[in-house]
Amino acid sequence: MRVFLSVSYSAEVDTAGIVRAAYRRDLEEIISFLEQQGHQVFCGPREDGWKLNEASPGEALLLDLKHIDACDVLVALVGGPVSGGVQWELGIARNKHIVLVSPANEPLSYINQGLVDSGMAQFVEYASREDLLAQLQTALTSLVA
Amino acid sequence: MRVFLSVSYSAEVDTAGIVRAAYRRDLEEIISFLEQQGHQVFCGPREDGWKLNEASPGEALLLDLKHIDACDVLVALVGGPVSGGVQWELGIARNKHIVLVSPANEPLSYINQGLVDSGMAQFVEYASREDLLAQLQTALTSLVA
Repeated sequence: MRVFLSVSYSAEVDTAGIVRAAYRRDLEEIISFLEQQGHQVFCGPREDGWKLNEASPGEALLLDLKHIDACDVLVALVGGPVSGGVQWELGIARNKHIVLVSPANEPLSYINQGLVDSGMAQFVEYASREDLLAQLQTALTSLVA
Repeated sequence: MRVFLSVSYSAEVDTAGIVRAAYRRDLEEIISFLEQQGHQVFCGPREDGWKLNEASPGEALLLDLKHIDACDVLVALVGGPVSGGVQWELGIARNKHIVLVSPANEPLSYINQGLVDSGMAQFVEYASREDLLAQLQTALTSLVA
């Protein structure tokens, strides 16, 4: 499937715009895992070479939009401070299948609880990195079936 | 016109869920002003009687969705901490006319700068409350014309 991986971005870069190394490793692990399952993955920060392009937020947004419209499923990683980008992408993806992924020890924000409660998003709550990958695989496999 | 006024909500309530008094006054001023201009205004916190209903975020979200789909224009108040709800509503309103309203002394977030730069949102940047109301009137009048 074509997976749009929606993630925090502008809050995860240093003053030069470079994505934090630990955060990048976490995302690369998820992307590699999904690609090994045969999925095509679009993830904004990777598309940008892990460096935020401050020069053209408008172009970045239109590219996002194009890839959300083309995806089969939007997987949103939430938890920690609210990401304005992830939340906007969740709205854009209203007619797509949405999987909302959150660490088990962090409460969902009000709006994201609403997405889960209303059935607009499937909820994956994970206890560890391994659990995250295993549950993500299960969630995406159930969509193909 | 039918105006959907998109505003921070769950971050602007006390522990009992009551909307902060000063924040409520600011919103009521904008709502009254728009209604005096002949617009119909939907604003989530007012709809809830200025008290957050923690019991049913799913219902609140579906009501929001219905009113965004029915609106002519979504006016989003941004500035300060990112609101997950406002950002989601901006995505839901992708095919509507959007007016993004921000205080002049606060930079836009990356994604909201993208909305303005790409032409997906009209930008109103205000220096004072009076300026906000005057510019909002101008923006909405230009849509009717």
